[in-house]
Amino acid sequence: MSDSDIIATHTADAGAPPAEDRVHDKEDRLRREFVREVFDAVADGDDERARGLVAELHPADIADLIELAPGDERADLIEALAGIVDAEVFAELNEHVREDVIDEMEPQQVADLAAQLDTDDAVALIEDLEEDDQRAVLRAMEPDDRAAVEEALTFGEETAGRLMQRDLIAVPEHWNVGQVIDYLRSTEELATDFWEIFVVSPDHHPVGTCKLSTVLRSPRSMQVGDIMLKKQTLIPIDMDQEEVALKFQKYGLISAAVIDPVGRLVGMVTVDDIVHIIQEEAGEDALLLSGAGEGDINEPIGETYKSRVRWLAANLLTALVAATIISFFEESIERMAVLAALMPIVAGVGGNAGTQTLAVTVRAIATNQLTGTNHWRTVWREIRVALMNGLTIAVLIGVGVTVVLGSTPLGAVIAAAMLTNIVVAGLAGVLVPLGLERAGADPAVASSVFVTMITDSLGFLMFLGLATAAGLAG
Amino acid sequence: MSDSDIIATHTADAGAPPAEDRVHDKEDRLRREFVREVFDAVADGDDERARGLVAELHPADIADLIELAPGDERADLIEALAGIVDAEVFAELNEHVREDVIDEMEPQQVADLAAQLDTDDAVALIEDLEEDDQRAVLRAMEPDDRAAVEEALTFGEETAGRLMQRDLIAVPEHWNVGQVIDYLRSTEELATDFWEIFVVSPDHHPVGTCKLSTVLRSPRSMQVGDIMLKKQTLIPIDMDQEEVALKFQKYGLISAAVIDPVGRLVGMVTVDDIVHIIQEEAGEDALLLSGAGEGDINEPIGETYKSRVRWLAANLLTALVAATIISFFEESIERMAVLAALMPIVAGVGGNAGTQTLAVTVRAIATNQLTGTNHWRTVWREIRVALMNGLTIAVLIGVGVTVVLGSTPLGAVIAAAMLTNIVVAGLAGVLVPLGLERAGADPAVASSVFVTMITDSLGFLMFLGLATAAGLAG
Repeated sequence: MSDSDIIATHTADAGAPPAEDRVHDKEDRLRREFVREVFDAVADGDDERARGLVAELHPADIADLIELAPGDERADLIEALAGIVDAEVFAELNEHVREDVIDEMEPQQVADLAAQLDTDDAVALIEDLEEDDQRAVLRAMEPDDRAAVEEALTFGEETAGRLMQRDLIAVPEHWNVGQVIDYLRSTEELATDFWEIFVVSPDHHPVGTCKLSTVLRSPRSMQVGDIMLKKQTLIPIDMDQEEVALKFQKYGLISAAVIDPVGRLVGMVTVDDIVHIIQEEAGEDALLLSGAGEGDINEPIGETYKSRVRWLAANLLTALVAATIISFFEESIERMAVLAALMPIVAGVGGNAGTQTLAVTVRAIATNQLTGTNHWRTVWREIRVALMNGLTIAVLIGVGVTVVLGSTPLGAVIAAAMLTNIVVAGLAGVLVPLGLERAGADPAVASSVFVTMITDSLGFLMFLGLATAAGLAG
Repeated sequence: MSDSDIIATHTADAGAPPAEDRVHDKEDRLRREFVREVFDAVADGDDERARGLVAELHPADIADLIELAPGDERADLIEALAGIVDAEVFAELNEHVREDVIDEMEPQQVADLAAQLDTDDAVALIEDLEEDDQRAVLRAMEPDDRAAVEEALTFGEETAGRLMQRDLIAVPEHWNVGQVIDYLRSTEELATDFWEIFVVSPDHHPVGTCKLSTVLRSPRSMQVGDIMLKKQTLIPIDMDQEEVALKFQKYGLISAAVIDPVGRLVGMVTVDDIVHIIQEEAGEDALLLSGAGEGDINEPIGETYKSRVRWLAANLLTALVAATIISFFEESIERMAVLAALMPIVAGVGGNAGTQTLAVTVRAIATNQLTGTNHWRTVWREIRVALMNGLTIAVLIGVGVTVVLGSTPLGAVIAAAMLTNIVVAGLAGVLVPLGLERAGADPAVASSVFVTMITDSLGFLMFLGLATAAGLAG
């Protein structure tokens, strides 16, 4: 390897200054000009040029490239890059784009792709196919691969059973380090990377783990049982992937053993599969809180419509409740239309205060920070914050209305309504998600409809009610 | 190790059925009863009992326990658990709680803790101290540790320089596998885990990496230069941690070399530090979108107040804009107060539609899915979804108003206003964050104030304007 090779490798991979990297921008996204160049080459039928451009890219970048192509140009792009778009690229593809592409392929082609992947990626490849297509692909697979995938498919979606790889290194504890190293050298290379070896009892129960660095540092004569870590985090095969991800994060795991219901080692989960899940699950909350469903820009438009319109319809209902409350005060409004101009302020800022508390609470619940032990303390904390916020905003709007509209009673009424609404918003923002969680529901999904309904209705009721009671619209 | 030991280990660590684990619940949170038991023991002065209860816990669990203690009981808890609450526990503590605890400690105590940690964790421990306290702690440290920490502190917050560890294994490419193994056996154990070794040129530029599994599988006579992977992802020392995290995720990295401005290997980042960042950065969007600031339930209440009230004040201003628009139509409202009852529906549902699009767009930008190549396609996608949503909701509310209030013109007006508002909300929800991003601002921070202002103002304007123009309130 010459020096110039080395430098070329650095430039391509190092996130070097943008001027030198014509493929990626500063934030590691594919540059628009580069993408255009590839698409143009494909459109011109110059496959050779397109292949030359992408030949050196990482599979994750080729997957990005396919996602960036307009839906109707993807098939041509993939055809032009035949051989370059391999199983790894498919494993990296966004699931909706992958589904689109795979729908157009023959079962045998899909089976060939799946055969080159780890079990978990192979399962991801075919799990969303229609039942008939899935059967056809499975029939076209080798018996061994097929059995592994079929078994993985028997586990619930988003469980450890779907995530795990069956390929792993397990050794008995009476082996010595030399035997382990000889065994590793003699076995075929695994489909997957491994970072720890698992130590098992004769009936294949995990009894410890050895980091590869420990194996490397230990003399050949040392027994595995003497150098292994006995404490390990075991993942039950039916554990939800979100829980698996939290365990990896909490305990700083690189890989973990998956056990079946009787405690036998049946697979392992590695951290590279987990980082995607952490990202998805953490990002999901923002989408769920705003009712955007899965919120993937590659999702088929019909599905996006369905998930969003349902949410809007639910909000329409809560808005109707608020409208009904307002209608009780039509007489006051007719006499004093400025009430109509001011009332959305009370409802709107209250809604914002509720959403703030809601976002914090949902996040704290999702990260296991908010538990049975500290929930009352957290509620009390939110009440104090809400009081401080409420007083500040109430003074601002109260003084503003008094000065601008020249009515102290009206200023007092809007200040009182605002304070009440912000405090109630804070309470609702923490109690609604805690209540939903206790009831076994996902607090991110339904909380905000309830909280908005409360802040809207109460905002209008308090403001119009107080104004009417104070005889302002008399 | 007897069989019963093995089973005990499993039960403690395996996330076994809840009935068998008295420490953790199903979701791996500390059980309330267990936490109470520890707190009670400390309150009774029975330190022995408290220590017995937590002795077997993972440092991350002990950190959780300290976070769960009310602020005024934390000092007693930590004192009772002296020796058990070690540097690892401090590294796992929530930053606000850690700051509180460390503020009460002597500089020498903090220096002793820092000495036991990797550079990155030591930096995290003292980076938020007041300048005077920080200097005192640094003075109390050993010269070597002090130099490493001081140098890390010269890099910007949230950059690779702060994240990286200086401890790593780097070997020249002419070494053979046997030399590497002998070197590993002869060196002292590193403070940190390592999963790959880095191969460097004579002037310490990284030229490749070797996974430990590759080293283990290769014969002793093989040259490192022949088995190393030449493609590697290099992290510039000033790279933002969010970019580092995206690289780890995109390329499935376990560790990566950090290089200084002239390209020399100066440290490494490992995936266990990255999973926390992925979580934080992904979860941050929900908090930023709702104006909840950092949104940590452990944050000092004064800071929480400041970040939230600023946002509410900004929303108060946008609400005043909407109120001003309504006030133009006071005459119409006086003549037909039902307009006041209906107008929040148009504004509110429009606001929800805008928030949905906003959440999806912000997420897609943050994950590098939405780039210069596909933004127009995404805008067009959102317009179509908005049209479908708008038509559905417009028909629902239009028909509803016509039937319930018996006025077809009013039904038509609210339907038209609703359709317009939802379509504009969709447009604003995608264009505002894209515009802010292009302007170099964080789209998650300010987008929602703008979008809400647009949907509120336009909702009122369209509905009241159309109703007035149609002579409904004539």
